[in-house]
Amino acid sequence: MARDIDDLPKQPANYTALTPLWFLERAATVHPNRTAVVHGSQRYTWLHTYRRCRRLASALSRHSIGAGATVAIIAPNVPAMYESHFGVPMSGAVLNTVNIRLNPQTIAFLLGHSESAVVMVDQEFFKLAEDALKILSETKTSYNPLLIVIADPSCEASSLKYALGKGAVEYEEFLESGDPEFAWKPPEDEWQSIALGYTSGTTASPKGVVLSHRGAYLMSLSGAMIWGLNEAAVYLWTLPMFHCNGWCYTWSLAALCGTNICLRQVTAKAVYQAIANQGVTHFSAAPVVLNTIVNSPKEDAIHPLPRLVHVSTAGAAPPPSVLFAMAERGFRVTHTYGLSETYGPSTVNAWKPEWDSEPPIAQARLNARQGVRYIGLEGLDVVDPKTMNPVPPDGKTLGEIVMRGNLVMKGYLKNKKANEEAFAGGWFHSGDLGVKHPDNYIEIKDRSKDVIISGGENISSVEVENVLYGHPKVFEVSVVAREDERWGESPCAFVTLKEGVKKEDEERLAVEIIKFCKEKMPAYWVPKSVVFGPLPKTATGKIQKHVLRAKAKEMGPVKKSRL
Amino acid sequence: MARDIDDLPKQPANYTALTPLWFLERAATVHPNRTAVVHGSQRYTWLHTYRRCRRLASALSRHSIGAGATVAIIAPNVPAMYESHFGVPMSGAVLNTVNIRLNPQTIAFLLGHSESAVVMVDQEFFKLAEDALKILSETKTSYNPLLIVIADPSCEASSLKYALGKGAVEYEEFLESGDPEFAWKPPEDEWQSIALGYTSGTTASPKGVVLSHRGAYLMSLSGAMIWGLNEAAVYLWTLPMFHCNGWCYTWSLAALCGTNICLRQVTAKAVYQAIANQGVTHFSAAPVVLNTIVNSPKEDAIHPLPRLVHVSTAGAAPPPSVLFAMAERGFRVTHTYGLSETYGPSTVNAWKPEWDSEPPIAQARLNARQGVRYIGLEGLDVVDPKTMNPVPPDGKTLGEIVMRGNLVMKGYLKNKKANEEAFAGGWFHSGDLGVKHPDNYIEIKDRSKDVIISGGENISSVEVENVLYGHPKVFEVSVVAREDERWGESPCAFVTLKEGVKKEDEERLAVEIIKFCKEKMPAYWVPKSVVFGPLPKTATGKIQKHVLRAKAKEMGPVKKSRL
Repeated sequence: MARDIDDLPKQPANYTALTPLWFLERAATVHPNRTAVVHGSQRYTWLHTYRRCRRLASALSRHSIGAGATVAIIAPNVPAMYESHFGVPMSGAVLNTVNIRLNPQTIAFLLGHSESAVVMVDQEFFKLAEDALKILSETKTSYNPLLIVIADPSCEASSLKYALGKGAVEYEEFLESGDPEFAWKPPEDEWQSIALGYTSGTTASPKGVVLSHRGAYLMSLSGAMIWGLNEAAVYLWTLPMFHCNGWCYTWSLAALCGTNICLRQVTAKAVYQAIANQGVTHFSAAPVVLNTIVNSPKEDAIHPLPRLVHVSTAGAAPPPSVLFAMAERGFRVTHTYGLSETYGPSTVNAWKPEWDSEPPIAQARLNARQGVRYIGLEGLDVVDPKTMNPVPPDGKTLGEIVMRGNLVMKGYLKNKKANEEAFAGGWFHSGDLGVKHPDNYIEIKDRSKDVIISGGENISSVEVENVLYGHPKVFEVSVVAREDERWGESPCAFVTLKEGVKKEDEERLAVEIIKFCKEKMPAYWVPKSVVFGPLPKTATGKIQKHVLRAKAKEMGPVKKSRL
Repeated sequence: MARDIDDLPKQPANYTALTPLWFLERAATVHPNRTAVVHGSQRYTWLHTYRRCRRLASALSRHSIGAGATVAIIAPNVPAMYESHFGVPMSGAVLNTVNIRLNPQTIAFLLGHSESAVVMVDQEFFKLAEDALKILSETKTSYNPLLIVIADPSCEASSLKYALGKGAVEYEEFLESGDPEFAWKPPEDEWQSIALGYTSGTTASPKGVVLSHRGAYLMSLSGAMIWGLNEAAVYLWTLPMFHCNGWCYTWSLAALCGTNICLRQVTAKAVYQAIANQGVTHFSAAPVVLNTIVNSPKEDAIHPLPRLVHVSTAGAAPPPSVLFAMAERGFRVTHTYGLSETYGPSTVNAWKPEWDSEPPIAQARLNARQGVRYIGLEGLDVVDPKTMNPVPPDGKTLGEIVMRGNLVMKGYLKNKKANEEAFAGGWFHSGDLGVKHPDNYIEIKDRSKDVIISGGENISSVEVENVLYGHPKVFEVSVVAREDERWGESPCAFVTLKEGVKKEDEERLAVEIIKFCKEKMPAYWVPKSVVFGPLPKTATGKIQKHVLRAKAKEMGPVKKSRL
């Protein structure tokens, strides 16, 4: 430390490791009887939740799980999933949330790589876990984690019975074995790890993103402040908690003594029902979910909404047309952007009052930009990745989006090379390409690897997609590079049509769509190929462009003669 | 650090010292054109403010002011005062805010003790500073700080001319000498000191409370979240910024990109005017200011208020009757409690929806309690100061209020003994006596030294005062111990009457007040003496009980024969 005015060392009275675990203790003290977690007919108060989490920590401790250990959980948004966010780190262990839509091979890799000593698994996904463990046992003979099955009355009884038959401990029974007054301790050092999450399958081998207690604490507060998530908010869990720990809102909700509404399965109808019946004030979702909501059948929707509902979205660049349609339906959408490596969203399109007077579609376009840094992120820039020099704020010059500060992960687990690359030059490299506008707001143009290079020109697949989302028959679209004999690469659009659109004559529809594009974009941007069908997605609703790229490759190059 | 899942050290990309200075950089980036500071006809945007603060930091650096140095400021709530909260620590130095109502002797002590290398002083207080420096020069020959005078067009020109004649540099000129693009640096270590503030004169020798960048950062966010201080809030500076750096709201306002409305002189009329003309949404004040507002002449008040106005109060226990009257007038009062040693308020009376159905006076009584810990304070309890065991939560057993965690000061400057006492047993000792209610809310009963011991029974002076505030003729009251021949001590009430109350017959009024008390409190609580007149106060509106105790002492003991 530099010279200071006096020597006043840290001591127990004035220094404690930052950790979101204190939020739960506080919620249970301040609002013991307020509803903390709702799942169907299950309701837990903050005092219940605190006692359940302490039981979990205590039971884990009795199995010698503590600092240095990892506990995996494979579950949708159910109470046990929420509780694991407190109970596991209260034992000192690290929580490894596993994406429930992964295949057994990938889960086997994750469990092996993270060396998870415990696997908590929802009854519906028990077989998936079992398959993964089988694969793993073939490579790693000594691996024998403690298996805990989470029962859910809304699932079929047979899967629970099956799991118990295989020797899994039932979650409630496991809690029973723990002490509800367990004297948990904050970490000795706030840099200690709290959570581990693997990047979703857009790349070949998943990387384990390690987060600290300090970062989780700061993100919980930053995320809440940026969004205006207020005291006693009622939050609907549309966003999977296994995705960056629900963007750290798991912990924010405890800080704000709010209420968590669980949701196993996300549909537009379920979202509207929860708004109508549970008093929901906030939810988060990837743009693809917003798209489902705005295209939901009229009988599922509620109009007008019983109250203003705040929505935060991230995970992909939301098309302006979707933002516009959400606003029309009474949702206030806060557009944020980030990665697993930044504890979830760490930039926000901070709304400006002067935009209120813009026409709605202009507003949606302004709001579609990725914006500015969160309060807790100290650095955000768009740079030339070679020189690390910032690009000019002209809204045109492409560069890499980089971040720096307390909302950046500790690093990837056991992956020195990836860490060196990710942190090169003192910044975290997002791998996303973007521009900086004259008002300092950044905007993503593409993932580095998603840029289409056609005749030497860069084409942003996102910009082509944004135009296509404006076509009245298009429900969802993803544009990737396809080999092109003449141009090297050219854009290939994969399109899902809206319900009710006649699909008989795909050839004619393709021509119609290409014509639409020609009117609205430079000629070299116009997709040379249009393919109809469902789009492959990750568990978090991200479209898997690498799958589409593989499809485009199978199709072979666009011939010179064509069109 | 305990065993962790991987060795992932801190590095520039993922770890930065916590400091509120980043908030200003962010505000200037996100909302460069939003009004940051208003003072009369002066208006500065966030970009202006950022550039002015960088100029200040740069100009100080050019005078070799940096880490290890202290810069004192003696000023009311004017723009320079706000700017000093960023500009001074951006240079690396520590900001020492000086209470403008202190006498020259005390200010001499403060400047000498803090070794302030620069003294920034508002033109109105220049003579005060000059007198203090004169006293100081008699004891400390080598002391020769850089003198900066802050001009204010609303003050008489003569005082500025006088200051300039004495060789002081004018603040705007000083800024001009600095670089608006100055490349300030965050502290190397977040534990580094950011501010120094001396405890107000309720004790004989002021103690210098040292605060860290880390604590200031956490308090800025905690205070905002607890109060619901939102993005773009318009905050009126009724609370002096020299009091715990305006409870750290100085920095919160930058985090929220809000607007600061300066105020040199606090009157009920000025507060109402600012609400009417400046769009004020929030202000903070000691209960004594609230009392002035509720008792303001009708022609000064505005009813109904043009919008809900949020008020946070702290500094003394607010009488329920004052809270009730504020609510009646449309203010939403958040009652908080803390000390300079806890960065300002660090506990809050968190409002519960179930209280909404209580009768108003019961609500006010519930809200008069000091409540629960802030999000950023990890420990709050009421303990037996000898054993450090928590008292039972029975609302009766008296103990000392103690705090622990990141919202506790680094310590007192150059005062080892005071630090040992303050931090004994791993907790910060507030010196306040209170109880813990069954709902976990704490309530102050008295300062240790303010308790009246009558016939061996403890009497809380605060409780006697609360009853007296319910008397229709009482404007303000303070109760202290007076020597009593029969009971050892007995309560002595110092009373200020409301405007318009006839004061001719003080004897009869005293009898009336005592009768009122007899109906509403145990006999031994009833004041044996009632004295009328203005109450001595500190700059922050705290009643100086030690002055009243001295007065009571001058009066001699209550005779056995009396009453």
